[in-house]
Amino acid sequence: MDSEEFRIKGKELIDYIADYLENIRDRRVFPDKKPGFIRGLIPETAPIKGESWDNIFKDVENVIMPGVTHWQSPHMHAYFPALNSYPSMLGEMLSNAINCIGFTWASSPVCTELEMVVMNWLGKMIGLPEEFLHRKGGDGGGVIQTTASECTLISLLAGRYVAIKMFKDLYPTASKHDINGKLVAYSSDQAHSSVEKAALIGLVTLRYIECDENFSMRGDKLLKAIKQDREQGLIPFWVCATLGTTGSCAFDNLQEITEICYKELLWCHVDAAYAGSSFICPEYRVWLKGIEKANSIAFNPSKWLMVHFDCTAMWVKNSSALHGAFNVNPLYLTHEYSGLAIDYMHWQIPLSKRFRSLKLWFVIRNYGITGLQEHIRKGVMLAEKFESFVRSDQRFEVPAKRHLGLVVFRLVGDNFITETLCKRLNSRGNIHCVPANLKGKYVIRFTVTAPRTTLDDIVKDWKEIVTVANGILQEREKYMKRAKVPLGETKDKNENFGSSLLLSNVPMSPKIVNGSFAAIYDQGDVLEQFQKTIKLRKDAQDSPAMRRRIRGILMSGKQFSLDSRLDLFHGIDVSPTGKPESHLDVVEDTLEVDEKSSSASEHETQSESPSPKRNNLDVPFGRHVRSKSVDHQTNLTIKDVEVTKKVCHKCGHKVGKIGKPDAVESG
Amino acid sequence: MDSEEFRIKGKELIDYIADYLENIRDRRVFPDKKPGFIRGLIPETAPIKGESWDNIFKDVENVIMPGVTHWQSPHMHAYFPALNSYPSMLGEMLSNAINCIGFTWASSPVCTELEMVVMNWLGKMIGLPEEFLHRKGGDGGGVIQTTASECTLISLLAGRYVAIKMFKDLYPTASKHDINGKLVAYSSDQAHSSVEKAALIGLVTLRYIECDENFSMRGDKLLKAIKQDREQGLIPFWVCATLGTTGSCAFDNLQEITEICYKELLWCHVDAAYAGSSFICPEYRVWLKGIEKANSIAFNPSKWLMVHFDCTAMWVKNSSALHGAFNVNPLYLTHEYSGLAIDYMHWQIPLSKRFRSLKLWFVIRNYGITGLQEHIRKGVMLAEKFESFVRSDQRFEVPAKRHLGLVVFRLVGDNFITETLCKRLNSRGNIHCVPANLKGKYVIRFTVTAPRTTLDDIVKDWKEIVTVANGILQEREKYMKRAKVPLGETKDKNENFGSSLLLSNVPMSPKIVNGSFAAIYDQGDVLEQFQKTIKLRKDAQDSPAMRRRIRGILMSGKQFSLDSRLDLFHGIDVSPTGKPESHLDVVEDTLEVDEKSSSASEHETQSESPSPKRNNLDVPFGRHVRSKSVDHQTNLTIKDVEVTKKVCHKCGHKVGKIGKPDAVESG
Repeated sequence: MDSEEFRIKGKELIDYIADYLENIRDRRVFPDKKPGFIRGLIPETAPIKGESWDNIFKDVENVIMPGVTHWQSPHMHAYFPALNSYPSMLGEMLSNAINCIGFTWASSPVCTELEMVVMNWLGKMIGLPEEFLHRKGGDGGGVIQTTASECTLISLLAGRYVAIKMFKDLYPTASKHDINGKLVAYSSDQAHSSVEKAALIGLVTLRYIECDENFSMRGDKLLKAIKQDREQGLIPFWVCATLGTTGSCAFDNLQEITEICYKELLWCHVDAAYAGSSFICPEYRVWLKGIEKANSIAFNPSKWLMVHFDCTAMWVKNSSALHGAFNVNPLYLTHEYSGLAIDYMHWQIPLSKRFRSLKLWFVIRNYGITGLQEHIRKGVMLAEKFESFVRSDQRFEVPAKRHLGLVVFRLVGDNFITETLCKRLNSRGNIHCVPANLKGKYVIRFTVTAPRTTLDDIVKDWKEIVTVANGILQEREKYMKRAKVPLGETKDKNENFGSSLLLSNVPMSPKIVNGSFAAIYDQGDVLEQFQKTIKLRKDAQDSPAMRRRIRGILMSGKQFSLDSRLDLFHGIDVSPTGKPESHLDVVEDTLEVDEKSSSASEHETQSESPSPKRNNLDVPFGRHVRSKSVDHQTNLTIKDVEVTKKVCHKCGHKVGKIGKPDAVESG
Repeated sequence: MDSEEFRIKGKELIDYIADYLENIRDRRVFPDKKPGFIRGLIPETAPIKGESWDNIFKDVENVIMPGVTHWQSPHMHAYFPALNSYPSMLGEMLSNAINCIGFTWASSPVCTELEMVVMNWLGKMIGLPEEFLHRKGGDGGGVIQTTASECTLISLLAGRYVAIKMFKDLYPTASKHDINGKLVAYSSDQAHSSVEKAALIGLVTLRYIECDENFSMRGDKLLKAIKQDREQGLIPFWVCATLGTTGSCAFDNLQEITEICYKELLWCHVDAAYAGSSFICPEYRVWLKGIEKANSIAFNPSKWLMVHFDCTAMWVKNSSALHGAFNVNPLYLTHEYSGLAIDYMHWQIPLSKRFRSLKLWFVIRNYGITGLQEHIRKGVMLAEKFESFVRSDQRFEVPAKRHLGLVVFRLVGDNFITETLCKRLNSRGNIHCVPANLKGKYVIRFTVTAPRTTLDDIVKDWKEIVTVANGILQEREKYMKRAKVPLGETKDKNENFGSSLLLSNVPMSPKIVNGSFAAIYDQGDVLEQFQKTIKLRKDAQDSPAMRRRIRGILMSGKQFSLDSRLDLFHGIDVSPTGKPESHLDVVEDTLEVDEKSSSASEHETQSESPSPKRNNLDVPFGRHVRSKSVDHQTNLTIKDVEVTKKVCHKCGHKVGKIGKPDAVESG
């Protein structure tokens, strides 16, 4: 393509993009595609000769768009917003045309300097103390990173560097590995999965602090854990405070936490990935109280502030700790231009970086502070409206206080009807939501996302929810009478039966690799196929580490987003004929697991609800009692799974003989 | 901005981009800006009210473009290419409009599926064995990462996971921290700085293997190091083989290395960041021999393949090891769609990812394999041409074999004249190059970058080089006679005297934080100012760790890109009047440093060259003998530097009394 063709095709694409965003309501928000749908649509090898642009471009509607989850749709309420805007897109277009790589000041001076200025703008916009800004003689400043996950990791590594340095100074004979082995990080049990990932990479122990009834981490429990760890000879070094949790947009008590970190010499990182954007409105800065004693903070303009992904704003008070984490004994030049000419390669994990400040600059200038505040407030207002709809219908409840643009709601009653509601909503494709698990309650998260969302959209969303809920509640009533749903009817109702908790990014990441695919197989009539073709790899099965892990999870009350999905395995077993049967001998998990009580006798424990029929169709509807953990895949009788049902349902430890790889036992 | 305005302004921007790239030769490739140039051009706080697009856009030419290093210019020869292309930009525009976040298959199915298909295309295009591709029942596959640095880190973490797991199985009582403390990683001493960063994050020991005379890591030396480490009770676990080093585009002997890794059970990662693009041409795949025994490989289509940054292609044979590194005891679902519906969040450090396969898909389809091959071959041909120009002039030499599009060259003679050449070329702004240090020789790297580079461009570049070289050689002749250059003349000649090794991304990262700024201050007449305003932080000074580090660097022969810059400090000292004086009592470093020989008497050692006059203007020209390491910042007499010249010039250890913070000694 030469520049003349680009002038023509680029302008056509501008129109296509404007059309796409203007008419996005016409598209299913969540695609009705099965894995591998792209096979057959695209050849398996690259073309030898170049193709014309027109030929390529017609595949955008044929191949790409049908498989897109439309994050810009006003009916997208899943995850958190990931918004674009026209000035943001123009900024990225320009950045891509320049395509400079800004690892040092000299590699493209304006790339560094604009980022510093705009990060100061943004820092002031959310009311950060001056120590977090680039300024003469200061060691603080802002940097654009790729994701909030990386900021969590970077701050943990910086905290680790500081802690190891400090302890090596105190105890010169201690090796850094000895010290590292004693380091303990802390976060709320509602924290994002990236905290766990960071701890894994940093090879440090992570301690989850149980949140209070408002899903908030409080100082008293944190301090208690720190003291207990110190008594054990461990070294507390880093805390991640979450402002706006993924599950329910709850806020840790920053003031209590930073006070403790300050006194106890712990690095406090603030993860405000979603909520941070709201701090441009003074009325929401109450949650930032205590920030002056924190060490680093990150939020995503790429979420709510209409600067499209990727763009994560991170500020630190002490950039030297970052450099120390990435550079062996870094040497510093300080000069009168400190705070003007930095080399960002020392602030981040990758060497190179894009010219991302352009799009941020364009958005802030084009909207202005007041324009962005209006956008945030409008989102909150629409969420309030939605909340009022939910509260006006007594069949629903809002089990956690609404904050900002996220409403969590559920149908009053057992978890299963809400789960069914969530899945069916997704399978219909008119709106898209993901669930969360709040202290054992299955809730649907409804986030207001798009800047073009209107009150009319919210009214339509609510009508859709009510329509689907009506159907489910009626079916349930019938089901309670008949205790069986005919195959045809289930198929009809459950066609492409929804996304599941697997989709949910709350509060920790799915522990099952390649699991999001499995989420679309949920109805009884495909269970047999599911069970035949999906198997757990044996190396993930029974082991001391696995048992420790399961117990740890149960003890911590940490909830996994995959649990309802994998519970399917509890209720199914393969008879000698190869036909699946349902046992449903699943018991409600308790937070405290005692090895003694986890005996074979538990297999006989029945739930209080009436025992459903042993029919594969019953499984989804009968599974009204759910375990809390994903890790209870017992009773699997797949050839290469060594552990059969002679393993405890709760913690996976052996209660009888272990089956050999080929020994298939019927239920 | 509403969609109607976007339609208009977006199309204007399309034209602006086409104009920019068509006329890029009219711009200085390297800007003539000083740090902080953006101050005064942009307000210090964000605007309260939104601004019109026209108002914003006029700042693109006023504020942005004057500060850009134009990486798309045909006269850009620095670093490695970072190319864009029209289909790539169109792909990103579409991706930004959709702005889906592809962490799981379900979060936007086509985002995952297209990436899998296109990564299979690309893997086949460079001739990767099938084990590296996504395929039914396979555990291998490709993924688009942000940077090659991240791939190095990810593979090291995966290797660490495998090693710790293996050793815990063998020695169940060993803690993972004990094991981690014994892990050893290996790379060539020409490897990229990201290897060191990865080792720091992974908290493992990194061993540099000395390259052979062709700057290639060979099996014998690697094996010897592995055996020695095993004898010491250490655990070799990971090797990074570089195909196309940053310094000279040298190639490690992959066949020898992977053979050893395979036998010794080490994870072998192949970093082909730049050279990988060339493997789409069968004639260059000779360097890939042995890849079948490697574990992972990464290269940047964002460098040479015209898919603009960021886009790094990474393939692994065993994705489970990645998942294990990022997930506590991951559980796997395998199913008939394995290889079709994966969740990429388990393959990378960030949770979220952009829809980057679109631009890669568009580029491959629009150019076709043959079109991309032509592009690569044309770049190599132009580099060959340039090499022939250099070789035709006996004043120049090419001290390392040219590979692909990178020619390294220098003026015959001492390093200083080539350094002067490089800096003056950059200060003139007609071409932009960065240097490298190859076994003590200062060389200029000349990389053919842009797809629109013509033979005429290369001819012009060579003429520019000859013109500047003529001037330098004439000046030098005069200087040798006069031994002093008048201030006016120096100013005239040295206006904005060039970027330096600080700019260079070879072979390791600058060890000095905020150093690239200092690079533009190099002429004698600003040395006084430089010395007044730039100081080394005292905490980076003399310490046991610093001394160990300096000795380690010297022993390993590892070369730093900052050395020539910081050598300035050797030759300057402040007299009681505050006027700088030059001592130039710098001696040639030897690779072996003996604490005994590092005595005060070295201060008297004189180089063999005639001693230049003690005048600040003499410093650049007189500094004809260079030390090898960056770490020789002695003789500093800045207030807060505790170490005065009573510290050894070589390794920084004390040779007399240490000056107090305020004790300034004159030279």
